[in-house]
Amino acid sequence: MLELYKAIADCDSNQRNMVATVIDGEALGQKALFSDEMLICETKESGYFSGHAETIWNMASDKDQCRKGLITLDGRRIYCDWLGQEIHLVICGAGHVSIPVIQIGLMMGCEVTVLEDRPQFADNARRAGATTVICEPFEQGLSQVEGGSNTYFVIVTRGHRYDQTCLDLIARKNHAYIGMIGSRARVAKVKETALLNGCDKAVLDQLYSPIGLNINAETPVEIGVAIMAEIIEVKNRKMRSSGYSKDILHAILKPEEKSGRKVLVTIVARKGSAPRDVGTKMLVTPEGRCIGTIGGGCMESEVLQIAFQMLHSEREKSRLFHVDMTGADAEEEGMVCGGVIDVLLEVI
Amino acid sequence: MLELYKAIADCDSNQRNMVATVIDGEALGQKALFSDEMLICETKESGYFSGHAETIWNMASDKDQCRKGLITLDGRRIYCDWLGQEIHLVICGAGHVSIPVIQIGLMMGCEVTVLEDRPQFADNARRAGATTVICEPFEQGLSQVEGGSNTYFVIVTRGHRYDQTCLDLIARKNHAYIGMIGSRARVAKVKETALLNGCDKAVLDQLYSPIGLNINAETPVEIGVAIMAEIIEVKNRKMRSSGYSKDILHAILKPEEKSGRKVLVTIVARKGSAPRDVGTKMLVTPEGRCIGTIGGGCMESEVLQIAFQMLHSEREKSRLFHVDMTGADAEEEGMVCGGVIDVLLEVI
Repeated sequence: MLELYKAIADCDSNQRNMVATVIDGEALGQKALFSDEMLICETKESGYFSGHAETIWNMASDKDQCRKGLITLDGRRIYCDWLGQEIHLVICGAGHVSIPVIQIGLMMGCEVTVLEDRPQFADNARRAGATTVICEPFEQGLSQVEGGSNTYFVIVTRGHRYDQTCLDLIARKNHAYIGMIGSRARVAKVKETALLNGCDKAVLDQLYSPIGLNINAETPVEIGVAIMAEIIEVKNRKMRSSGYSKDILHAILKPEEKSGRKVLVTIVARKGSAPRDVGTKMLVTPEGRCIGTIGGGCMESEVLQIAFQMLHSEREKSRLFHVDMTGADAEEEGMVCGGVIDVLLEVI
Repeated sequence: MLELYKAIADCDSNQRNMVATVIDGEALGQKALFSDEMLICETKESGYFSGHAETIWNMASDKDQCRKGLITLDGRRIYCDWLGQEIHLVICGAGHVSIPVIQIGLMMGCEVTVLEDRPQFADNARRAGATTVICEPFEQGLSQVEGGSNTYFVIVTRGHRYDQTCLDLIARKNHAYIGMIGSRARVAKVKETALLNGCDKAVLDQLYSPIGLNINAETPVEIGVAIMAEIIEVKNRKMRSSGYSKDILHAILKPEEKSGRKVLVTIVARKGSAPRDVGTKMLVTPEGRCIGTIGGGCMESEVLQIAFQMLHSEREKSRLFHVDMTGADAEEEGMVCGGVIDVLLEVI
């Protein structure tokens, strides 16, 4: 089982990665990791997936067959969890707008890389908590940034000639988003030059500029909120992915805790309104510590109790639990929503 | 002069407050504070405003006559600065969504009050840095919150019966914004009950719910960003106000610094694109410390040099400085924008 989570932690975020879990019948809890159509690893007891790898991959990739992450194969429901949640935010420039973007990015759990050639400003980015700060001319800095399908580039340098350098290089990298600050007129000029410099027109047409949602943002913090709101919007427009947070994987895999059993809780189905969506995960330790949340409130407490029962039972390894938040009871208990969710609990 | 800033710091944020400053001619730098049509205080040397108080108030209040904060009276240009920038954010509930709202609110310089009846959750709000946390049942908590034209209410409690309590009370308070979390169906029910409980229909029709801009936010932090983006959008839709930040007023008024001269820099006019808008302020101390920013870059350095000259001159108290960011020089210096701004520098 741990091997599988190790494979999940190690998988290449530039590939398409998916974890499939059987959520009913005898095979309840059987799991496999797929990367770019290939079956990489499955839970030992299983063997189930190797016979159906291609079928499962194809069904999971098809929006019509895979609704909200669920497919049905031979009467079994399989929850297909597309990985790739972690955003890599690459910010060119560490001026006034950059700082709130760094801060909100970190709140969201992004990896944040900042490029800035002025040492003082680079220090501001470090103080704001950026994961990596590269204090070199933008050209050299960007040669160290790889890009990828989860990389979001924010160009907020102090002047358009630096923006030009950055855009020319970034447009050639794999990316999920490129946003650039500046007035319409200046942005048009930079784009025009980028085209002459050989950048792909299709990429330039996709440039988010003026950067950020139009909320009449004025101060640097307001512009930072507008930029991050736009990035969230772009991210969530794609095939909904949830995956495993770094914190959860770390808690599962760190050596000192390997011996302690834990329960991984995943929302695998949702009807109506619920605080969190399918794919949301929470890890419960025997001491009652929770990493992540499936929505809080009484619903979460109820799930926690089951998790504790499972931690103290030797037999039960997986359970699918149905939470109904529609009735009068839920109302009385002050639950927030009116939906129904299925929660998968797995002892690890 | 300090008296005027003291009056600005003390003025009632439930009234409409405006600072008028003459920005050219012999009266350059003459200033007055108005509250609800009344002239409250003017710079001693002046006497100018008392003769024209009503006219100036009326012109400043008229969107056609007061464009971007400027009016012209007898050939003099007067910059009219509407106060009321500081947002009071009142958050009901200290659960998962509340925390990022608190954090981003603090980044924006808001005063943040959190109401929560569960001590553990109230502690989370304290740790997140909330200005005030009231740990009492919502009914009692809200009786201690006054409301006002700059108060933004965010209702994100753990259940709809608490939301109901909060909405019933908040709808009766003066406010700039009320947002409430929850599914459409549940929100409709809470609104219906609020109407039966005697709340004003017009207020309920203005309720922002589902709360937050629609960016498909999923995680608590994403929902927090969506909520703050909505609040910024609502705030900036109103008559643009800028005013004086607490930090700037504090630095002007704190006793230990009273003796030291400082320069207040204000953007009073803008054409074309510039990093910051009219009303943006920066205070420069003799040691070269800046509180606030008028946009950074070379333009700001140039303004700083003039501020230092003025600090060392006994004669010059005010100067209007014109910054042109359109030319080839600006391009060469890497300035971000292509606009023209007028900056007022005042020795205090």
